[in-house]
Amino acid sequence: MVVSMREGCPKSQVAAVIAAMERRGLKVRIISPGPKVVLGVVEAVSKHLTDDLRFVLSDMPGVEEVSDFHTDWKLVWRGPEQQTSVVRMGGRSIGGPELMVIAGPCAVECRENLLQTAQAVAASGAGAIRGGAFKPRTSPYSFRGLGEEGLKYLAEARELTGLPVVTEVMSFHEVELVARYADVLQIGARNMQNFALLEAAGEVDKPVLLKRGLGNTVKELLLCAEYILARGNQQVMFCERGIRTFETETRNTLDLAAVPILKQNSHLPVVVDPSHAAGKRELVPALALAAVAAGADGLMIEVHPEPAKALSDGRQTIDLPAFDDLMKRLALVAQAVGKTIPGVNP
Amino acid sequence: MVVSMREGCPKSQVAAVIAAMERRGLKVRIISPGPKVVLGVVEAVSKHLTDDLRFVLSDMPGVEEVSDFHTDWKLVWRGPEQQTSVVRMGGRSIGGPELMVIAGPCAVECRENLLQTAQAVAASGAGAIRGGAFKPRTSPYSFRGLGEEGLKYLAEARELTGLPVVTEVMSFHEVELVARYADVLQIGARNMQNFALLEAAGEVDKPVLLKRGLGNTVKELLLCAEYILARGNQQVMFCERGIRTFETETRNTLDLAAVPILKQNSHLPVVVDPSHAAGKRELVPALALAAVAAGADGLMIEVHPEPAKALSDGRQTIDLPAFDDLMKRLALVAQAVGKTIPGVNP
Amino acid sequence: MVVSMREGCPKSQVAAVIAAMERRGLKVRIISPGPKVVLGVVEAVSKHLTDDLRFVLSDMPGVEEVSDFHTDWKLVWRGPEQQTSVVRMGGRSIGGPELMVIAGPCAVECRENLLQTAQAVAASGAGAIRGGAFKPRTSPYSFRGLGEEGLKYLAEARELTGLPVVTEVMSFHEVELVARYADVLQIGARNMQNFALLEAAGEVDKPVLLKRGLGNTVKELLLCAEYILARGNQQVMFCERGIRTFETETRNTLDLAAVPILKQNSHLPVVVDPSHAAGKRELVPALALAAVAAGADGLMIEVHPEPAKALSDGRQTIDLPAFDDLMKRLALVAQAVGKTIPGVNP
Amino acid sequence: MVVSMREGCPKSQVAAVIAAMERRGLKVRIISPGPKVVLGVVEAVSKHLTDDLRFVLSDMPGVEEVSDFHTDWKLVWRGPEQQTSVVRMGGRSIGGPELMVIAGPCAVECRENLLQTAQAVAASGAGAIRGGAFKPRTSPYSFRGLGEEGLKYLAEARELTGLPVVTEVMSFHEVELVARYADVLQIGARNMQNFALLEAAGEVDKPVLLKRGLGNTVKELLLCAEYILARGNQQVMFCERGIRTFETETRNTLDLAAVPILKQNSHLPVVVDPSHAAGKRELVPALALAAVAAGADGLMIEVHPEPAKALSDGRQTIDLPAFDDLMKRLALVAQAVGKTIPGVNP
Repeated sequence: MVVSMREGCPKSQVAAVIAAMERRGLKVRIISPGPKVVLGVVEAVSKHLTDDLRFVLSDMPGVEEVSDFHTDWKLVWRGPEQQTSVVRMGGRSIGGPELMVIAGPCAVECRENLLQTAQAVAASGAGAIRGGAFKPRTSPYSFRGLGEEGLKYLAEARELTGLPVVTEVMSFHEVELVARYADVLQIGARNMQNFALLEAAGEVDKPVLLKRGLGNTVKELLLCAEYILARGNQQVMFCERGIRTFETETRNTLDLAAVPILKQNSHLPVVVDPSHAAGKRELVPALALAAVAAGADGLMIEVHPEPAKALSDGRQTIDLPAFDDLMKRLALVAQAVGKTIPGVNP
Repeated sequence: MVVSMREGCPKSQVAAVIAAMERRGLKVRIISPGPKVVLGVVEAVSKHLTDDLRFVLSDMPGVEEVSDFHTDWKLVWRGPEQQTSVVRMGGRSIGGPELMVIAGPCAVECRENLLQTAQAVAASGAGAIRGGAFKPRTSPYSFRGLGEEGLKYLAEARELTGLPVVTEVMSFHEVELVARYADVLQIGARNMQNFALLEAAGEVDKPVLLKRGLGNTVKELLLCAEYILARGNQQVMFCERGIRTFETETRNTLDLAAVPILKQNSHLPVVVDPSHAAGKRELVPALALAAVAAGADGLMIEVHPEPAKALSDGRQTIDLPAFDDLMKRLALVAQAVGKTIPGVNP
Repeated sequence: MVVSMREGCPKSQVAAVIAAMERRGLKVRIISPGPKVVLGVVEAVSKHLTDDLRFVLSDMPGVEEVSDFHTDWKLVWRGPEQQTSVVRMGGRSIGGPELMVIAGPCAVECRENLLQTAQAVAASGAGAIRGGAFKPRTSPYSFRGLGEEGLKYLAEARELTGLPVVTEVMSFHEVELVARYADVLQIGARNMQNFALLEAAGEVDKPVLLKRGLGNTVKELLLCAEYILARGNQQVMFCERGIRTFETETRNTLDLAAVPILKQNSHLPVVVDPSHAAGKRELVPALALAAVAAGADGLMIEVHPEPAKALSDGRQTIDLPAFDDLMKRLALVAQAVGKTIPGVNP
Repeated sequence: MVVSMREGCPKSQVAAVIAAMERRGLKVRIISPGPKVVLGVVEAVSKHLTDDLRFVLSDMPGVEEVSDFHTDWKLVWRGPEQQTSVVRMGGRSIGGPELMVIAGPCAVECRENLLQTAQAVAASGAGAIRGGAFKPRTSPYSFRGLGEEGLKYLAEARELTGLPVVTEVMSFHEVELVARYADVLQIGARNMQNFALLEAAGEVDKPVLLKRGLGNTVKELLLCAEYILARGNQQVMFCERGIRTFETETRNTLDLAAVPILKQNSHLPVVVDPSHAAGKRELVPALALAAVAAGADGLMIEVHPEPAKALSDGRQTIDLPAFDDLMKRLALVAQAVGKTIPGVNP
């Protein structure tokens, strides 16, 4: 249940509404503190109580609208006039006027390789480093990542470059371990509806990058973020990375309409991963540029010094010069939509 | 790597092949003991070693074919001439000439209701009871099941009817708890690629019913079963329950071609869940009958005494008389394809 | 707009309702003459007039319900208690208790081949012959069929076997030509929404087999049939042949839920084409059996004496002995659901 | 079959290769005249002849590569180093450095409305006017357009503004009529594989805008364009307008990866229609901007003075001030990717 107060209504009216709700045993949260106050009840409310409240509240002074349209994603919801929330990532941030580009190899394979990549992408203007230490693999017999050793290399890459580290956590019992090394916990597409993992991620004090499942709707993605926020962690960003369709020219079909839909429904920042969607490196630049034009707050791009030798996803990975070139083109499009990439002059 | 020996070749030739493989440090498993012996290596084998072995083995007496076509699902794979494996479920079984019908409510809601349903479906010829104690829910604010209390009611239903119990486990730390009460662990569609859960299920001595994810291919389903078998648990059955497509008349599109594809690629039994696919109770009978004709070893059907009052999935749930009527029609089609439903005369 | 009269209401009440509608300038059609009379207005009715009529009619004696739920497919719609319409195909029929199996090669390639196939499938119990003389091809450089020469061979096959001929018409200017030779005009999946072709087919006195488009919903299929019926041709049957999804193991995903949905919404017979959906001959029998169990009135199956040599679709075509074997199995499942295949003893 | 000659090889070598091909009865076309000469044979070539030619040609001086990889879309194919072809539309063009924006109502409804829209979009910088006189409708009872009367209004709008007119032709017997009034013939998504229509469009001297079918792959779109070019009309442009997927927040899922794929495989210009894909006007600007960043040569946008009153597609139509605002933002993104919109200063 969401109660929108009239803009500029006196605080006493807000207090009276809160009191009326609390008298009925509800825990009221302030979704937006102003200029237009929006109040919300996150917990499930019985139909009977909702009807009663709607009746009572609608008559109280200062109340503009009582709605339950967005009751399923209350904390994730974008209140009227609300700005995109800025999520801090190490010393950087995402959600404001700066475009965040997260770059690095699909999997952390060896120390030298990762450090070389990290330095190169940092020099090109990347804002964070990515790399998988724990890798979900379709087959039980594929390379599954270096585990904690990989996390240590990532931490070393952070030391070297000053950039925050984004890496995947695949199971709730590894959340604590990954959070010790990473700046941002990535929840992968296969785990988007792994509710135990979402709730564990909701209890740590690290930002979470939540990827959309291949077979999941935008609405389900909003609801999965709600699982995290409902446990107390407000630092969540979405990641659109393509959905499964009949088209086989690409690995997945990047759904860029998800960007404005997510921005219109939620205050959380939106990242786009063109690499996994495309599945072919020659398509990555066009999709990356399109994502920025569509309003994405950030990008996540797979980069490797020698893509042909990468242990996973080499076909969709661009090399270091291609990344450097892409950053310059991204800066131009970012500027055209009112954003900047720090350190990259368009 | 799979090595098929000629039918009727002497045991000494088989032993020589095994010895040649073991000398190279490989652990050889007997995928099919006869009449045509098939040997397999489950662990990843380097390209170099594979090439070497292929060269050496091809010249050895008795060897018919050295193949790595199915290396990704070696344990799940259906060897030449192999029958469907029979999986035991409590005192019943699935995979043989008897059609297994698993029936019950979507979620365990209250004791009386569950016991009433269990008795009724048992009387109609069901071979197992289903009911969710832990429910995955798209929204964090929906009813998530009774937890252990629900498991106890399910165990009571088993006492009462003698039927084995199938229920979902959602997280690997609950595998032990659920296995204490259930006869079959269900892994739901959202968790099909939750690899930590698959591996935990691979280490218990209970059959696993693995549902296909909404956005997952049949090949991925085969590989997820391989995760379980690779950990030692051979008692796995697949469950086709519909995939996501553009069609909105049904909740999901039931992909019945998955039945013959799974049977041709794997020796594991196949169950079909028409209820979740249809999303509308009036479509359930036609899809259930079709599944049996397509060769399914079992069905999983949502049944409730008063579907309109069910807390979840009421729209796709049939009532007790409809289930009884459906069982009679299923017995006729089962007979037409050479199967029987114990206790139901066609 | 649909007006359902109470069962057994006097004819004078029906006449009064018709008069009230005609006074408002509407052309009233009798959708179902009894026992429950259902009246319909096919032409578009303005919102204003609908509201007015609903108000007036609801108060008239004998009127049970005024509905505009099915106004988009009024002629196609299945009235209360209505049976499936029986469509005559040459000397045979579809829609009653007899299962119609249409069999033959994808394309008519040569006379001898076609006549051999026709005689063989007739001997196995097929009820009609199929074969393409005009072939839609994805590439402009592929074999496009023999044209009128192919039609002549088909007519010769009919002479020889007594079976009616089903063949595709691709453009409205060929409707007359194809209708001269064929017993049933097939409108292919790519042309489902070729409205000029639908309307031309609506003006001939030959049955039409309308295939669902690969990217079309069941609702759109219903509406395309309405295009044909609205022009006066009531002899239409649907054909489900698979839709496009992300699954690549099959050519398309056969949507068998379409069978009960079409039957519940329309009085027209439903045919299923398992060959095009499967794309692989080893999957055809399972899907054919499933279609009959799901309630299909007919099947359309690609058969060729030597599938490996067929100029198109060989991979999904079964040979003559496989067809003969399948017919026996189909007869068993048909019997289980209350149907028969004339000439094939289960 | 495609034969690529070495860059800079003497003309005598090219002539010798052509002669060798012609001696075998093939009609050789010059796909690219230089600097790297590429020769092609469009007609189907037997496997036997292909093998023979490959053998002979590979040994001839100057031949770099003999390939049949692209044999299915030979005329549509982008030769090495080839630029995008510029297609003339009335006095304007598409495919060069100028971004073409085609704007107007979904359907031509009344003269005043159309003229008002045409003048407004021209003033905002549109390069062409769109509007449907013949409308494909899912239901036979929906408004199907004004027909020739609508074409006359469109011609009047062209007189008034000087802008070329894009309008749909739905059946091959109307090609001549529509071509009398229109500057560009649009072939709609439902008719993408209406081969009779494609071939008729291949024989007129007007550019064709070919929309991708909702259920069709990019490869099929390329092949349908080949149908038109093979009949002699080289003035074709593609239009991506979204495909059908499971996501229901949008009408269709815009597949922007199609833009770079089409550009890499073909020399023909690419237009994107964000309006039909989005289905909601609030998503149109983000998708339009993204399409330009992805490399589209043009956009097609539905605009109406009062979208809420439009007879069709009002929900996805933007109003005149929104269009004017969008053009300014498009000009900025166009500039960032090296394009301009004539008359709109970024």
